[in-house]
Amino acid sequence: MKRDRNDDMRILITAGGTVERIDDVRGITNFSTGRLGSLIAEEYAGNPAVSVTFIHGKTSLKPANPAIKLIEIASVGDLLEAVTDCLTKETYDVVVHSMAVSDYYLTGTASEEAVINELLRSDGTTATLKTNLQGSFTPIDQGNQKISSDIETMYFQLQKTPKVINHIKELQPETILVGFKLLVGVETADLLTVAKKLMVKNQCDYVLANDKQQISGDQHIGHLVDTTGNYETYKTKQAIAQGIVEQTVRGRKSK
Amino acid sequence: MKRDRNDDMRILITAGGTVERIDDVRGITNFSTGRLGSLIAEEYAGNPAVSVTFIHGKTSLKPANPAIKLIEIASVGDLLEAVTDCLTKETYDVVVHSMAVSDYYLTGTASEEAVINELLRSDGTTATLKTNLQGSFTPIDQGNQKISSDIETMYFQLQKTPKVINHIKELQPETILVGFKLLVGVETADLLTVAKKLMVKNQCDYVLANDKQQISGDQHIGHLVDTTGNYETYKTKQAIAQGIVEQTVRGRKSK
Repeated sequence: MKRDRNDDMRILITAGGTVERIDDVRGITNFSTGRLGSLIAEEYAGNPAVSVTFIHGKTSLKPANPAIKLIEIASVGDLLEAVTDCLTKETYDVVVHSMAVSDYYLTGTASEEAVINELLRSDGTTATLKTNLQGSFTPIDQGNQKISSDIETMYFQLQKTPKVINHIKELQPETILVGFKLLVGVETADLLTVAKKLMVKNQCDYVLANDKQQISGDQHIGHLVDTTGNYETYKTKQAIAQGIVEQTVRGRKSK
Repeated sequence: MKRDRNDDMRILITAGGTVERIDDVRGITNFSTGRLGSLIAEEYAGNPAVSVTFIHGKTSLKPANPAIKLIEIASVGDLLEAVTDCLTKETYDVVVHSMAVSDYYLTGTASEEAVINELLRSDGTTATLKTNLQGSFTPIDQGNQKISSDIETMYFQLQKTPKVINHIKELQPETILVGFKLLVGVETADLLTVAKKLMVKNQCDYVLANDKQQISGDQHIGHLVDTTGNYETYKTKQAIAQGIVEQTVRGRKSK
């Protein structure tokens, strides 16, 4: 996989948010404008020797540079497929995984009445309660439909989605992986601790740690943490984008 | 409320989709681009004697005419507040309610473990099962938080949202109300039957009945049904917009 430094660099970026389908007209959305990811893509693509692939959600902002290859996805399943496809076909020097990915996908819906009716058949043990609870949900049909709109109290059953970031280093151990951690209303020390855990767990080379309460338009406090625990703090989306590009390009050259 | 026909007409349009909050970074979204609603707004606003207010979701397309007053909302609660505010302050000649509105909002989340543990305390009667089921859900905190991402099987509890369309004629009995009915993959006869039911239930003067499978970009089959059960069928978003404007303006003049 080692290539001469005069080769084109290849960069994979994910940005925006995923949508998990409820039915044809509804979904569970992770909010993300894709603005930061777009800026990072533009920053890399400013160098004509760098080729950039940008995987994005449906409502995500997209970079304007026409040299950037765009791939649109909806669900976490789509994202995993697109990332796997890219990483098995080409060698990427850097993967910047900034997408806001859903932690859960919907597996079934049930009215309260349906749940209670099913639970009444249980003998009160953990095993039967669990079986009857699960059995009361109507599986989500991937075909065309709208869920009923006439139920007073409704329940959704959801399962954990696969963690896309886990697969990146499995597919390309030598890529430089930049993970993202967004928390809401925490102390910087706690944010950095969580970022370092994410780094170890997913074999990231860098983690951009940020707090939603410190993001407002282009003002965006972000701490870019490296594997030694050192970090640089940036104050705008543009500065974060430049910081990520500088660090990862330098990181690649020193490999 | 009767006004001279030389008065400015005032039109209220809702468009795009609502988002019900899960937490600071996730929501339940109703998909709608707001493209048709925007075209309807532009069509009305083409006449300078007509003033248009456009209530829209966050990611909705918006009409370009700067004379149109824009009001952005997120949830069904916000929508009801905005519509009520408009209709109590001003007299609107026509209300076109094209927004894709969520039927449910999230009231609580629970892990499977939490649900089972709570159900184990039930004596097996409907009453205690119901109490314990409901009691196992952690209420949605409207403050800042992210729901846990580490639960294998998760449940959401949802309640029916208030029907915004029910309130329009209560607030302004003399307005001309255009309701929308979107179904997925049904026969035209069934679609028209459902549209007529919506008309009676919500005191609409017109209902635009359409099927998601017959919408693709600007190609958009829509049946504009009136209170007599007669309908006109249009084939593009532009034609639907023109049809709604023509019929409602004519409708007002004949009042």
